[in-house]
Amino acid sequence: MFLGIDLGGTNIKVGCLDSNLKLICKTTAPTEANLGPDAIIDRITDTAKKLLTGNGLSMESVEAAGIGTPGTLNIAEGTVISAPNFPKFRNIPLRDMVSRRLSKPVVFENDANAACWAEYRAGAGKGVNDMLFLTLGTGIGGGIISNGQLVHGYFDNAAEFGHIIIQKDGRSCVCGQQGCVEAYASAAATAKRAGEALRSGAKSSLRKIFETNGEVTCRDVFEHCAQGDRLATNIVEGTCSALGFLCVNLLHITGPQRIVFAGGMIAAGRILPDKIKYFFNQYIWHLKPEPVEICLASLGEDAGIIGTAALALHAKQQGKL
Amino acid sequence: MFLGIDLGGTNIKVGCLDSNLKLICKTTAPTEANLGPDAIIDRITDTAKKLLTGNGLSMESVEAAGIGTPGTLNIAEGTVISAPNFPKFRNIPLRDMVSRRLSKPVVFENDANAACWAEYRAGAGKGVNDMLFLTLGTGIGGGIISNGQLVHGYFDNAAEFGHIIIQKDGRSCVCGQQGCVEAYASAAATAKRAGEALRSGAKSSLRKIFETNGEVTCRDVFEHCAQGDRLATNIVEGTCSALGFLCVNLLHITGPQRIVFAGGMIAAGRILPDKIKYFFNQYIWHLKPEPVEICLASLGEDAGIIGTAALALHAKQQGKL
Repeated sequence: MFLGIDLGGTNIKVGCLDSNLKLICKTTAPTEANLGPDAIIDRITDTAKKLLTGNGLSMESVEAAGIGTPGTLNIAEGTVISAPNFPKFRNIPLRDMVSRRLSKPVVFENDANAACWAEYRAGAGKGVNDMLFLTLGTGIGGGIISNGQLVHGYFDNAAEFGHIIIQKDGRSCVCGQQGCVEAYASAAATAKRAGEALRSGAKSSLRKIFETNGEVTCRDVFEHCAQGDRLATNIVEGTCSALGFLCVNLLHITGPQRIVFAGGMIAAGRILPDKIKYFFNQYIWHLKPEPVEICLASLGEDAGIIGTAALALHAKQQGKL
Repeated sequence: MFLGIDLGGTNIKVGCLDSNLKLICKTTAPTEANLGPDAIIDRITDTAKKLLTGNGLSMESVEAAGIGTPGTLNIAEGTVISAPNFPKFRNIPLRDMVSRRLSKPVVFENDANAACWAEYRAGAGKGVNDMLFLTLGTGIGGGIISNGQLVHGYFDNAAEFGHIIIQKDGRSCVCGQQGCVEAYASAAATAKRAGEALRSGAKSSLRKIFETNGEVTCRDVFEHCAQGDRLATNIVEGTCSALGFLCVNLLHITGPQRIVFAGGMIAAGRILPDKIKYFFNQYIWHLKPEPVEICLASLGEDAGIIGTAALALHAKQQGKL
């Protein structure tokens, strides 16, 4: 068995997979991210032990574990350099600390790459050795599988898809750049663009929600788009146009067979990949057909635990643990 | 010894490397690209044999060969699907045809990837396992080294850097897209943008050349920029701004340690990487430093033969030949 640990700012998720990547059991506990690293690692190991005990399993049958976390990491060294959600994490050797506490070998990965690996091994990208994975949430992140391998980049800074600039001198991004795709097409930016239009007086069935709450959510925008509201449709099309444009540029760089979208926004369903593909076809060259597949992730909230456990299994199979 | 064959539309270049990647000898012959594949492969093998004989070497001491060619390829199968410069090449199993004629194992690669591999193994990217390589010529092409491996993409269509769109609804590109970086920053586009400005009456020391020849070259533009001409400087800065912008986006995708520029335009010298880096710094976020190195290729015209021979050596070392 392999343990997968998804350390988020709000929750610690732990799952247990067999060597066929079947999820045997899983659990969640609050992170209490303001605690120091020792206390958080206590919570991780306690949660893992309770999961096993509660399911009649023993730590002895666990071969290895994987842990995924947000932040700026040094993957080779297994350290968290910094992480906005964990104010007390500064150059923390998280991998080795967890490994010592569990007495198991541990693999270490950033959260988006772990989810990407999950979709590649067990989800919407199964068997697709050249795949891109994009999460559409507050920001836009992701991962790259190239010839069956995660692409980390020299500084472990690859696949920062949200900060690809799609519009020179465009909307300001939290990162300090202008025109990042994240400033147009994340769930947060989609909601924000709708709010801006409503604030400037646009007619829309979203107005009631906006006047009650002072804002609208990305979910509201997609719902009202599905009901035919003109403004909501324009906003959704702006989002999908930005993502289709992004897909053209990504295609010309890594040459994927499939692009998998994940994150909160994919609750919108088929409209999302359909419209992204529509705009992709508007922007792409016509020199030759580009039959890249654009689809939705299938593992939802379990991607983090499946991915980290699957990475532990993979490292074991490769003789790297 | 390893043979490297660089099959271009104008010339066939053949070189002979030892297993330390030292270039022992090289030669060039005209391609006569309108010939059929059999005749062209005759020319390749004759050129290789003459090179060896002329240098007192024998085919027996050649372990393997590599061949690089432009066009749409199927790398795994070793076939040229089509190539604009070779009108008679349609689904030609070039790798196996050359291998049979030379009675040697042959590796097959596209020309830009072969040059990229040369710079990675023996040139400006030596030892840099996460590297991007961009050629600035009539178009813009390149290659990606990720964790020491060439990135091909599922359809062998990765690293088409020239067709990354940097300006939505921007300048028309030969590929049918709008706003490709190639339409701004290739050597051809740089010359073309200068010609457009001159045609519309801009004051410039380039005018005399323009009126004599009806056009200016990219080299003219860089030379007059170096002499302080305002228009030429603006054009060069437009080119370098587009390339700096491109580097920001590429950084966020593959996370390179170094970006190596090659192709005719690099005759301009240090001004090119200096200005590209200047504009990179204008566009990049300030969340954290991004110490990616931007530099010029060092192997010049020999990159094709060195890269293909080095790929043959690598395949041999990996037990893949």
